Formats: sequence, C-alpha cells, structure tokens
Amino acid sequence: MTQQHDDAFLADWAVHTRFGAVPGTNGVDRQAGTEPDGEQRRWFAELLESHGFTVKRDEIGNQFGLLELVPGAPYVLTGSHMDSQPTAGRFDGAYGVMASAHACFRVADELRADPSKARYNLAVVNWFNEEGSRFKPSMMGSSVFTGKMPLEDALATTDHAGVSVAEAMGGLGELGEKLGIDVASYAEIHVQQGRSMEEDGVTIGLVDATWAAHKFEFKVTGEQAHSGSTLMADRRDALLGAARLVVAARELVDRFEPEALHTACGELNVYPNSPVVVASEVGLLLDLRSPSAEVIREAHRMLMETVEQVQREDRVEIEVVAEHSWDRNPYPEAGVALAAEVAAELGLTNSRVMTVAGHDSTNMKDDVPTVMLFVPSVNGVSHNLNEFTRDEDLIAGLNQLTGVVRRLAEGALTE
Amino acid sequence: MTQQHDDAFLADWAVHTRFGAVPGTNGVDRQAGTEPDGEQRRWFAELLESHGFTVKRDEIGNQFGLLELVPGAPYVLTGSHMDSQPTAGRFDGAYGVMASAHACFRVADELRADPSKARYNLAVVNWFNEEGSRFKPSMMGSSVFTGKMPLEDALATTDHAGVSVAEAMGGLGELGEKLGIDVASYAEIHVQQGRSMEEDGVTIGLVDATWAAHKFEFKVTGEQAHSGSTLMADRRDALLGAARLVVAARELVDRFEPEALHTACGELNVYPNSPVVVASEVGLLLDLRSPSAEVIREAHRMLMETVEQVQREDRVEIEVVAEHSWDRNPYPEAGVALAAEVAAELGLTNSRVMTVAGHDSTNMKDDVPTVMLFVPSVNGVSHNLNEFTRDEDLIAGLNQLTGVVRRLAEGALTE
Repeated sequence: MTQQHDDAFLADWAVHTRFGAVPGTNGVDRQAGTEPDGEQRRWFAELLESHGFTVKRDEIGNQFGLLELVPGAPYVLTGSHMDSQPTAGRFDGAYGVMASAHACFRVADELRADPSKARYNLAVVNWFNEEGSRFKPSMMGSSVFTGKMPLEDALATTDHAGVSVAEAMGGLGELGEKLGIDVASYAEIHVQQGRSMEEDGVTIGLVDATWAAHKFEFKVTGEQAHSGSTLMADRRDALLGAARLVVAARELVDRFEPEALHTACGELNVYPNSPVVVASEVGLLLDLRSPSAEVIREAHRMLMETVEQVQREDRVEIEVVAEHSWDRNPYPEAGVALAAEVAAELGLTNSRVMTVAGHDSTNMKDDVPTVMLFVPSVNGVSHNLNEFTRDEDLIAGLNQLTGVVRRLAEGALTE
Repeated sequence: MTQQHDDAFLADWAVHTRFGAVPGTNGVDRQAGTEPDGEQRRWFAELLESHGFTVKRDEIGNQFGLLELVPGAPYVLTGSHMDSQPTAGRFDGAYGVMASAHACFRVADELRADPSKARYNLAVVNWFNEEGSRFKPSMMGSSVFTGKMPLEDALATTDHAGVSVAEAMGGLGELGEKLGIDVASYAEIHVQQGRSMEEDGVTIGLVDATWAAHKFEFKVTGEQAHSGSTLMADRRDALLGAARLVVAARELVDRFEPEALHTACGELNVYPNSPVVVASEVGLLLDLRSPSAEVIREAHRMLMETVEQVQREDRVEIEVVAEHSWDRNPYPEAGVALAAEVAAELGLTNSRVMTVAGHDSTNMKDDVPTVMLFVPSVNGVSHNLNEFTRDEDLIAGLNQLTGVVRRLAEGALTE
C-alpha cells in the first residue's frame, strides 16, 4: 500500500475520534444508541457511500456497507463496533471498524481494476452494542445477527432510565430490515486489551482462543433498618454481604498461580442507597476468567463456599439471579494459519495470542470461517480514556487486515 | 383527655398514613419535596385551618400552623417531619407532627376556654427534609430555621436527577417568606428507633442525650480498566478499596464491648458502574456512632489505619471528602425534669433514654428550652416498611405531649 492510502486512513481516523469526545481528554463516551453514536453512524454512512458502498441497517441496528462486485455472490464481512464504554478510549472497537472500511476500500479498488480475481462481494459492519454498558448483554448486535439472541428480547432491553433499544435506535433512525445476504467469511481486528504483545515486541496478534469464563449476577437480600440506631446484632446488611463477596473475589486470585485467574466486580447497585438506611438489596455482577477451564471450576467452587459463609455469618440471602459460563473457546486453525501467512508476506512480527475479552468475532466464528487479529496497546490500558495505540501499529494492522480481506475475497478459507 | 379526643387523633392518623403509601404494604415512600409530600402538606394545611390555625411556609419550606392567643407573644413550637426514607415506615417523624397538631388542638381548646392561663401562642411545625435521603444533608429545614445552614446552600442542593430544592419545593408551591415569630420553647415526640423501651416496659422515653458520632464521606479513586483482560497486578480497583472499607467498618464493632459502637455504610455509588470496567471512583458514606466519645475517637483511629492499609495494598487513593462529628450531646435537664413530672401525673411508665439518631430537636435545643420524647417501637424496626407502634402507645405519647405543651404554654421552662 502507498503512503497516500495510509494518510487517507489516518485522516478519516482523526475525524472519527471526535464523535463523543470527552472534553479535555483523548477519550470518548459513545455508548450504544446515544446521540454521539447516531452522529458517528451518519458520518460513517457518508464515508462508505463516498467509496461506492451501499449502506443498510438490519433489524437490530447493525450498520453495513455493501459492495457488490460479483452479482449474487456471498459477502466477505469485516468489522467491529463503534460504541464505547462510558469515558473510554478511542481505539476499542472503533479502530476495527475504521480499519475494516479502509481495507475494503483498498481491496475494492484492486478488484474493480481486475474483476477476474473476485470470488465474493465485500461488506463492512459496525455491530450494534458490543460493549453492553448501556444495554445488557454485550455483543448484542452480532448475537441477534447470528440468531443467538431473539430480536424481540434485544429490542425490548432497557437502560437504567427505562429507554428501550427499540426506542433509542428507532429515535436515531438506525433500525432497518433483516439483511438478505449470505456471509462467506468474517475478519475482525482489535487493539489488544492487555500488554503481552507490546512486551514481546509483536505487531500482529493471531488470536487462537478466548479464555474460559464464569459470569454471575448476584442479588444480596437483607432488611432495611436505621443505620444508626438498630442494634448491630439485629442487622441484616445487604451491602455488607455484597462487600464481602467483592473482597472474596479478589482474594480468590491469590489462591492460584499468578495470572491463572482474573476476577472482577465492575457493577454494584444498592437499594435504597440512603445514608441512614441499612441496605435491603444489592445487585452485583461478578466475573471469573481464566485460560484454564479447570481453574474456573475450582474458583467457582471456592466462591460458592464464601457465598454460604456470608449468608450464614451476615444473615443475608444471596441468590444467583443469572449466570453464564463458557469453556476455553478456540478460533479456527485455518484462519490463524491464513493470518500468519499474510503477516509473513508483509514482514510483520506476529505470534499467537489468546483473548480474555469477548468480541463480535466470538459469535461469527461459530458460523463462518473467521480471522481475528490484534495490534498492540501501550501498557494494555483498556476501557480507559488514556487507551493508546501508535499510528505505526494502526497502519500495520490495516495492512494486515487488507491482506486478509484480499485473500478472503479471492476465496481463501472457503474452498 | 376523652375517648372522643383520642378517636379524633386516630381518625386523622389513618387518613394521614395514606399519602405516599407503598401498595401492598403498611409503609410509605414520601421523600422530601416529592408529589406525595406535597399532597400530604396540602391535606395537613386544611386540617390545621379547620382547627383555626393559620398556615405559613418559611423560605425553605418548613410548614407552620400558627394560633395567636396572646397578641404579640412568642410561640410554643412543637412538631417533627412528615418526609420519609424510601420504602419506610409510616410512624417515623409523621407521628410526631400529627401528635403535635392534636396536642395543640387540645391545648388551644383549653386556653380559649380559659384565656387567663395562656402565656404564649401555639405553633405546629412540619420540618422540611429531616431524612436527607433525596436532598443531603438531613435535618435541612430545622438547620436553616436555626441559622446552622445557609438558605442559599439548602435551596441549591440537588437530588440524583439534578433537581434542586428550590425547584422541587417551588414546584409544589411550598416555599414562602422568612417567618417573623419568636419561639419561646420547643417540644418533639418520636417513635424510638431501637427496642430498649419495649424490652424495659417503658411507655414514655425522656430523651436526655444523643450519641456521639463521626460521619465520613469517602471518595476512593482507582483507574478505569478492562475488568477481564487487565492483569490483576495492574489494577487499581476503586470498588475493591471501597468494599474493604465497608467490611472493615463492620469488623471495628467487634473490637469494642457489645453495643459500644455502631458502624454503617448505607450509601455507595460506583463509577462507571459497568459490568466490564474496573471502577475508577466510588463514593461512600460511612458512620461511627457510640454513647462514648472515647470509643468514637479510638474507632476513628483504627479506621484511618485501615484506610492507609487499603491505599497501600490496593493502590487506590482514599480521600475524606467531608466529615462531621459531634460529642455526646445532652438535652437540657429542665426539659427532662418537666417531661418526667408530666408522665408521673398521667401515670405513664417512663425512663431516661439516649437517642442514637439525630432529630430536629437536636437543632432546636441549642436555641430554646426543649423537651424530646419517645414512645416504643415494636422490635425497634426503623427505616423499614414494617415499622410499628401500637395505638395505645401513640395515644399515651399524645397525652404526654399534650401535657408538656400545656405546661410550656403556661410558661414552664421559660420563667
């Protein structure tokens, strides 16, 4: 690719990062279905159309740019998500969408010049609500697209203010019809949400598996009481019970080898949350993650022992309202091998990596041949205003993704 | 007093408890400045007017019923608050206002019949926002009335939705002018928010002091990060730090004699509070309370050791954003003695009690001779839908308060 191509990408990237910009920072706040999300979608539609792509939204608001080169043929699909966490970095997801668009622009120009090479058509996707911060669960758009989540459930999901997905996305004019295309294969690129690639001096990560995980939604039930005058022995304090679970989850980590287990509680809601009332109910989300399913099972067992202990000692009830878990989950080997070939051709350092976080490709890989790529992130800072990836790595990733899309359009992985 | 008087009170009480009723329960949700608070105030104004009282609101929305018996003389003031915590009991505060109104109705009838006995005029008050759940701090109305909180600060205080006191109370038509009356003395009655009186078989509590307390608003600052992929060693988890403080506060209790120390955290707010983001900031309110100021000082020292330890071990910053403390704080002995005399005359069992919770009388007692009374609460259940006091105790308390108001109107404590 030429310097001109790279400059064009960086110019569009610079415009793109201004939608939902958090004043005085390099980061963004562009949660799914908000006005900044809508503004960015409108701008992105114009960008796609200016390169000859036709823009469509499907029934959950996934945004597609379609280019038909081979009438009636299936599509090579590539993309990620433009929605963000609150006060987050500008790279997460958005880099993948912008790189996908520019990879398709480049491959489209090549195939228009030499139409005999095209086996498939090209499509770019901006998946709806990958983050799951405003509307839960995460990866909603790709879950509906792949039939893993019913459309009706997704549209009826509400945020904390009671606004539904149907209302938010309908209000932005971003809901369309079911998309009638066949997808031949899928490619996605993302910044690594960790620091191993930077430490190892690797430019391209060939994602070969996701970590195993067990995610819980707990409800801790106590009893409202005056937080000053009620005898300590009479209290059934839901917030105390919840706090013990948060601390216990962190302490679990130290019972395993270093980095064998990640645990977290990121969301916790207290009722009635008043300064002089002992809380009667606390909801919290708690995750266990590990490269080893065996570690997850053992940590799960230990956590449930703590749950029993807290129920007994603090006289609260702890209910698992919802939980879901998955085993260590491999990406298809053929996709890893294809990506390694492309990286070798481009002279880019590369190695296999696992992903701890989920991605829309986690949904797509179960249906079609899929390639998942990473570029490095400085210090692995993620879901943070200060997330940063260097321009040279953005460009290297774009070239890598372009090479993969080119191969896929010519029939790789599907013949 | 006659059965007819008691029945009149119970009839009005039954109407009164329906404002802000929580469906399917005996309790109420009538936070300060909400529509149910406004409905109740309009009804209460009509009740006062029907007994010949003139209704006025002052500049922060304290609601007064005034009866001038001695032209130009100061007023005996009696009252409490009708606002509640979310999903709270129907007795807390509201019993005191309703008992005050009926005590004044009775004494007014007596003094109209024999005007020579009246030294002072009579006033009932429904203090604005004693609870401090929607608008902080608590005891806002009586703090402004006694000059302890600037009016401008109170009016500018906003709730979680950004609505100010000025907007909420102005919208209800419940803001008036500064009240131009002199207060000679003050009396208040409340349900005990504890179970000692019930256990000891005491009908009238003569409140002689408040517990010592130290209240903290902590801000725990960490750093946003991906809650799955960020290495555990890299995390600075504000929610983990906050949870450790909540647990530590409870553990402090066990380092002292039984019931020497009460601790609580009732309110805790997480940012960004998203399932896959390590929290960057958590605000929490934490209280220490004790009948002994020495215990408070020692518990404070221990808590600060924990703060240092959590900052060090979990790499978070913990800031005391605000704190206020008070020593064990006595009520005037003359008021306690007067209340004991009245109880003896009525043949009501009585004893001295301390209050753990603050009351509007805590503000008033610093300015004027003050009497604070309790009636029992079954099992001491407080700030809970199931709070309950028996009718016979409500009536006994009304008779006691009537006796105190009669004595005050005749000049007791002020001559």
